[in-house]
Amino acid sequence: MARYFMELGYKGTNYHGWQRQPNGTSVQQELENALSTILRIPTSITGAGRTDACVHAKYMVAHFDVENPLPDPQKLSGQLNRFLPRDIVVYSIVPVKSDAHSRFNAIARRYEYQITLHKNPFFQNLATRIAFQPDFDRMNEAAQKLIAYTDFTSFSKLHSNNKTNLCQIEFAFWEKQGEVHVFHIQADRFLRNMVRAIVGTLLEVGRGKMSVEDFCAVIEAKDRGRAGTSAPADGLYLVDVIYPENILPSRARTER
Amino acid sequence: MARYFMELGYKGTNYHGWQRQPNGTSVQQELENALSTILRIPTSITGAGRTDACVHAKYMVAHFDVENPLPDPQKLSGQLNRFLPRDIVVYSIVPVKSDAHSRFNAIARRYEYQITLHKNPFFQNLATRIAFQPDFDRMNEAAQKLIAYTDFTSFSKLHSNNKTNLCQIEFAFWEKQGEVHVFHIQADRFLRNMVRAIVGTLLEVGRGKMSVEDFCAVIEAKDRGRAGTSAPADGLYLVDVIYPENILPSRARTER
Repeated sequence: MARYFMELGYKGTNYHGWQRQPNGTSVQQELENALSTILRIPTSITGAGRTDACVHAKYMVAHFDVENPLPDPQKLSGQLNRFLPRDIVVYSIVPVKSDAHSRFNAIARRYEYQITLHKNPFFQNLATRIAFQPDFDRMNEAAQKLIAYTDFTSFSKLHSNNKTNLCQIEFAFWEKQGEVHVFHIQADRFLRNMVRAIVGTLLEVGRGKMSVEDFCAVIEAKDRGRAGTSAPADGLYLVDVIYPENILPSRARTER
Repeated sequence: MARYFMELGYKGTNYHGWQRQPNGTSVQQELENALSTILRIPTSITGAGRTDACVHAKYMVAHFDVENPLPDPQKLSGQLNRFLPRDIVVYSIVPVKSDAHSRFNAIARRYEYQITLHKNPFFQNLATRIAFQPDFDRMNEAAQKLIAYTDFTSFSKLHSNNKTNLCQIEFAFWEKQGEVHVFHIQADRFLRNMVRAIVGTLLEVGRGKMSVEDFCAVIEAKDRGRAGTSAPADGLYLVDVIYPENILPSRARTER
């Protein structure tokens, strides 16, 4: 058996999320169909995580196994790209140790959330439009507070079956890129719905409905009912999945 | 009677071009429907030019007349944006002299053409993917030659009824912006299909099928049959329409 990591990206708009499911098309399903057709044997893939419907990934990792080592992994990558729809891209296929696991071995993930303050035809489905002018300085002040906490029950989905709601957030800040405002957040792990709940709550701070102190109180309450409304899926991007050097060496990674 | 310039933009993917037509939705039609509904009187608009099906506009100008001056043009702009689909935006409504004409008074137009060399889910319909690595230095050398010519019959559409095929090209060059290669071209006027024919022919130079001298010979032949295949609509953007200061002052313009 030989195992490979597949580095990929997708525009999530036309998918019911990453995860294969009975109704609706998923990214995983498209990739498994393409892989199974090209390799001529049913092949399943395991992703580093899940993304919800309409959420995008600039960089995602999944692994799959084949019986015999591929003679030319990059050739398979080209074949997959020709087979796959235009909204899914495979950057590369990297041979890894047979026990390397795309989900369990990931040590960090990074997301971006993009918002625009004006109607822009070219950001349709790719950014969330906010109808007010938020105070980004105050939102950055609140975002900074996230680093000091580890229990994010307040930003988790109700009834999700996580064993713990503990996460180590490495950084979280807003940055202006042209006419888009981007929220960057990296952590060892994320709870389901967590980034969208954080962004939604930060926007409450940004519009003055919540103070930075209120934001901290929301986290400390460990109560999902206290957070703001989750921000829409359109603006959310998974942008990185990071592994130890002995699992996926930096030199083997496709930089995005 | 009061006349207004409307500054606007659109993603052309879902439209059969700018121009109102019996079959298929056009940008002009969407704008006229929105304007007529909000003003409660049938109102037609005249565009600075036409764009073909799937061609985008980051900046376009059109004019329209109303019987009495609008009390608050910017309010109308907001109403239009709420009424219009997400792929059309009105930047502003500017009062102009009653004989100002969006097409006849324009003194220059600028287009961009975007190409990518890799599959990218986020540039779907927004850039043209090229399957080879073109020589951009050589393409820029050829593009430079355009400035010296004025008769662009070779890059015009057959059987189009232009009175003349003369254009003054002010600049034309390729530039790398992140992972997108952008062709910038500005001229006093453009013939139908001209930018796509120029880009298609420059790409022949870029892949080594045509020399810079061949490119000049194509222009000098004044024969549409000599040019390369027109580049696809997806990558083309109208990005500016320029007027004399006394028609649309710079201070009144929405900068894109």
